[in-house]
Amino acid sequence: MISRDEYFMREALKEAQKAFEYGEVPIGAIIVANNKIISKAHNEVERLKDPTAHAEMIAIATALEFFNNKYLDHCTLYVTIEPCPMCAGALSLTRISKIIYAASDIKYGYTLFHPSILHKKTEVKNGILKDDAIKLMKSFFENKR
Amino acid sequence: MISRDEYFMREALKEAQKAFEYGEVPIGAIIVANNKIISKAHNEVERLKDPTAHAEMIAIATALEFFNNKYLDHCTLYVTIEPCPMCAGALSLTRISKIIYAASDIKYGYTLFHPSILHKKTEVKNGILKDDAIKLMKSFFENKR
Repeated sequence: MISRDEYFMREALKEAQKAFEYGEVPIGAIIVANNKIISKAHNEVERLKDPTAHAEMIAIATALEFFNNKYLDHCTLYVTIEPCPMCAGALSLTRISKIIYAASDIKYGYTLFHPSILHKKTEVKNGILKDDAIKLMKSFFENKR
Repeated sequence: MISRDEYFMREALKEAQKAFEYGEVPIGAIIVANNKIISKAHNEVERLKDPTAHAEMIAIATALEFFNNKYLDHCTLYVTIEPCPMCAGALSLTRISKIIYAASDIKYGYTLFHPSILHKKTEVKNGILKDDAIKLMKSFFENKR
């Protein structure tokens, strides 16, 4: 039996895998409320020619539309790689309840800048299925060389 | 005769004034390339029920679409208030050439977090028409009380 967090992180990894197949940096995100998946997204920077089209931003936009509300304070974000400062700032503005990321981003993760970019009430957890998330990223960047 | 920067900041202030009239936090932004205004935007958080709908984010989206390019490395952003960490992160990802803001945001400006959220090649200037930008914000928040 797998935990709930592992179950949802696997869904985020499926999104990351889609990004991989489309030639996008393989990062996936999902947003969950009341144990239901509200939005699924993957990185679409290349397709949209938009460097801000990160998985988290797209997942946030869909969830905001779904709830027709300015805040996601009852939601959890699962994302395969640690959010960047832009995404952390956006998540802070939504007052999201919880962020769970698989692997740290040692180059551009928000914690390298300032952990308090996030809202003070947002809970953060990481490490779930970290190896799978890293494996996908490594294999993407190896293919690029 | 007014300077080019003052001319463009006045345009950003006109956007901020529009936001004010719509009951939005009065912040305006414009993006300029080759001395031409490519996009104009103001804060639309309330109308869109989207806490990420900051003037800068909307101006960036329009400019990216206009150039059909991932980067705005030949553009200048004029914004009436210092960008927040989300907007600074987004601006970094676009590799924008220059950011000029009127007034500092003493509560949530990106410089309070980490100045290097911005791209290392991005030039930053501030203070132009600062008093006008602050006056608009003060009058907005006084009306709210």
